[in-house]
Amino acid sequence: MKPLGPIPAGFVAIDGELAIGGHKVSDLVVQAGRTPLFIYSRDRIAGRVAELRAALPAQVALNYAVKANPFGPLLQAMAGLVDGFDIASGGELAMVTAAGIDPARVSFAGPGKRDSELEAAISAGVTLNLESEGEADRALTIAGRLDVSPRLAVRVNPDFDLKGSGMKMGGGAKPFGIDAERVPTLVKRLLAAGADWRGFHIFAGSQALDAAAIAETQAETIALAARLADEAGAQPPKVNLGGGFGIPYFPGDLPLDLSAVGEALGAQFQRLPTELAGTGFCIELGRYLVGEAGVYLTRVVDRKLSHGEVYLVTDGGLHHQLAASGNFGTVVRRNYPVAIANRFDAPVDEEATVVGCLCTPLDRLADKGGFPRAEVGDLVAVFCAGAYGASASPAMFLGQGPAAELLV
Amino acid sequence: MKPLGPIPAGFVAIDGELAIGGHKVSDLVVQAGRTPLFIYSRDRIAGRVAELRAALPAQVALNYAVKANPFGPLLQAMAGLVDGFDIASGGELAMVTAAGIDPARVSFAGPGKRDSELEAAISAGVTLNLESEGEADRALTIAGRLDVSPRLAVRVNPDFDLKGSGMKMGGGAKPFGIDAERVPTLVKRLLAAGADWRGFHIFAGSQALDAAAIAETQAETIALAARLADEAGAQPPKVNLGGGFGIPYFPGDLPLDLSAVGEALGAQFQRLPTELAGTGFCIELGRYLVGEAGVYLTRVVDRKLSHGEVYLVTDGGLHHQLAASGNFGTVVRRNYPVAIANRFDAPVDEEATVVGCLCTPLDRLADKGGFPRAEVGDLVAVFCAGAYGASASPAMFLGQGPAAELLV
Repeated sequence: MKPLGPIPAGFVAIDGELAIGGHKVSDLVVQAGRTPLFIYSRDRIAGRVAELRAALPAQVALNYAVKANPFGPLLQAMAGLVDGFDIASGGELAMVTAAGIDPARVSFAGPGKRDSELEAAISAGVTLNLESEGEADRALTIAGRLDVSPRLAVRVNPDFDLKGSGMKMGGGAKPFGIDAERVPTLVKRLLAAGADWRGFHIFAGSQALDAAAIAETQAETIALAARLADEAGAQPPKVNLGGGFGIPYFPGDLPLDLSAVGEALGAQFQRLPTELAGTGFCIELGRYLVGEAGVYLTRVVDRKLSHGEVYLVTDGGLHHQLAASGNFGTVVRRNYPVAIANRFDAPVDEEATVVGCLCTPLDRLADKGGFPRAEVGDLVAVFCAGAYGASASPAMFLGQGPAAELLV
Repeated sequence: MKPLGPIPAGFVAIDGELAIGGHKVSDLVVQAGRTPLFIYSRDRIAGRVAELRAALPAQVALNYAVKANPFGPLLQAMAGLVDGFDIASGGELAMVTAAGIDPARVSFAGPGKRDSELEAAISAGVTLNLESEGEADRALTIAGRLDVSPRLAVRVNPDFDLKGSGMKMGGGAKPFGIDAERVPTLVKRLLAAGADWRGFHIFAGSQALDAAAIAETQAETIALAARLADEAGAQPPKVNLGGGFGIPYFPGDLPLDLSAVGEALGAQFQRLPTELAGTGFCIELGRYLVGEAGVYLTRVVDRKLSHGEVYLVTDGGLHHQLAASGNFGTVVRRNYPVAIANRFDAPVDEEATVVGCLCTPLDRLADKGGFPRAEVGDLVAVFCAGAYGASASPAMFLGQGPAAELLV
């Protein structure tokens, strides 16, 4: 038997069945009309935001990284919870606009912005996080044509990375941002061109569970922002400190010590460099805000034996849960937290492998996990499905199509 | 500098620019109206089919595995080239039906068939490749309700795998098919129930470049089919020998020796077991038919330097080319064949990394490859993009949306 990832704290059973937001999952499936189904919990998202507000210094704004989960009702709910939104494409700009979010709260990072995307963002008053000098030139040209002063921040490629992060986005050559040593020159040029310079965006990595590593990176980020401000001779109105707060997915992963991160950041703010005295700071989080709030539900359509091993074949799969299947940038496959949702409080009584309905050996949701005996018609829950699930998976693979989604 | 994968033979330049089907790619982009763009070549697909017809014994039928590429115009073109179609979902059934393909030419394999999919397939006269006894029960029940004799084949989980294959689909416990030793009992039951038993489907692996391994697997497959027929006391009308013919993607990969596969299969047919004397055989191919016929084109939107390294940032990425980015079930990332399409015959003069527009370090199309110097506006071609590209990638990730597709 192989271990399963840790189910996020706080999920309970009603009548033996997994409940989300006080509703049994079978009732939510009826409400949605079908499986597979992503369910996102408002309460869990609001609870996570409250934890962050309590732990982090009051002067830090909280941004939501839309890429983690762009589901419309979730964006609308988020509008009342966080301070800003970070988008990564013109498509995401359309999504936040459709959700009624004021573009003045939105910033746009991404290394491959097309001219049409720059124009849409500048017109709307979105802050662009510039990724290169070439992009700066294009933005200034477009703004000149539109006769507006564009809101431009500079994304910095830092000289350090976030230690222990699942994805490094700084330290050495990178496609993101502008190498730190070239940033002051660019800032001076933006100011001279009459742009509304908004400050710096410095993102060193993501999915870290080590509070000390995050605190160290935040300290380095503040020091770098101060140095760049000094060299540029201008105080940045805002500094986006990046994110990187991880969630536990796999056996042995422990939750991030949020209070330790908050205390360290508070201490940093006590001794803020003078170059940043009037600067507003924000933290940009996606996965940490929504990842544990989401559950993916899929129904068992076959139970079969092969050479003594039990397979539970579901109507879902990697086309909705690419990361959980272990095929999205993963070297060694490990199990996400997975349970039989309608037997949530039943004891383990067999080893079973949960696979999806795709005709490929890649489509595996849980490998040799311990489960209560499950039958055709039962519901499988994959936890930690709120971020990089529905939108980060190949929904059309093998003609399947998207899952249903529900915010409760 | 890291090596790039081998560009499939036969691609030529016109006026220095990559041409497909006699058209310069820049003209095809104009025709499609945008990048990113998948271009599939009718001539290359027809040529590949002709090579197969010439190399394989005449009595082997050729099936197309729709999952490799379900683009509508490509399915329509394929209808005049191959004998049968293999689908993997109700969604793919709708696609082949929309392409005007006779359901009598279609078989349906896949471990997680819902009742609604079984019913649609049985009603249409599609052959079901049964994946379990439970699925057989459900199919017989549905057929009884519809008052038809269902066309049912049995998918066998063989006791061997395809050596050297990229994906093993047999040998030991598997979610696919029914363990060989239980198959004869099921066949007897299907016959007793009045089903139109169509034979066996035996698929041992995919993406193998070693002709000897494929020949060995085909010999084992024929021997297994004969043994199962003998034990069932019934001659199978058809045996699907599987596929597994691979294409070169990576540096050092060599094309499959198709004539060696054909000769070995011809020799097998010379000494066919008496149990299979009246059996029709087919080979099921997806990637091998269309993979090398497709090119993915994406435009350079930024050229940037970071710590001395050149990055070409494109308007495409892993949302269309997940496998090429190295993130789809890959342990060690290697480069696909990639070129600067509008400088196709220009010499290499720099090392550059080609990335997509997604704001994630996973989005890399070529790592430190050798290219002619490319500028903003140039077109990058990723080859071997005809199979498991558009439909096997997370098109909606970061709000991007699907690429354009064109059959020329």
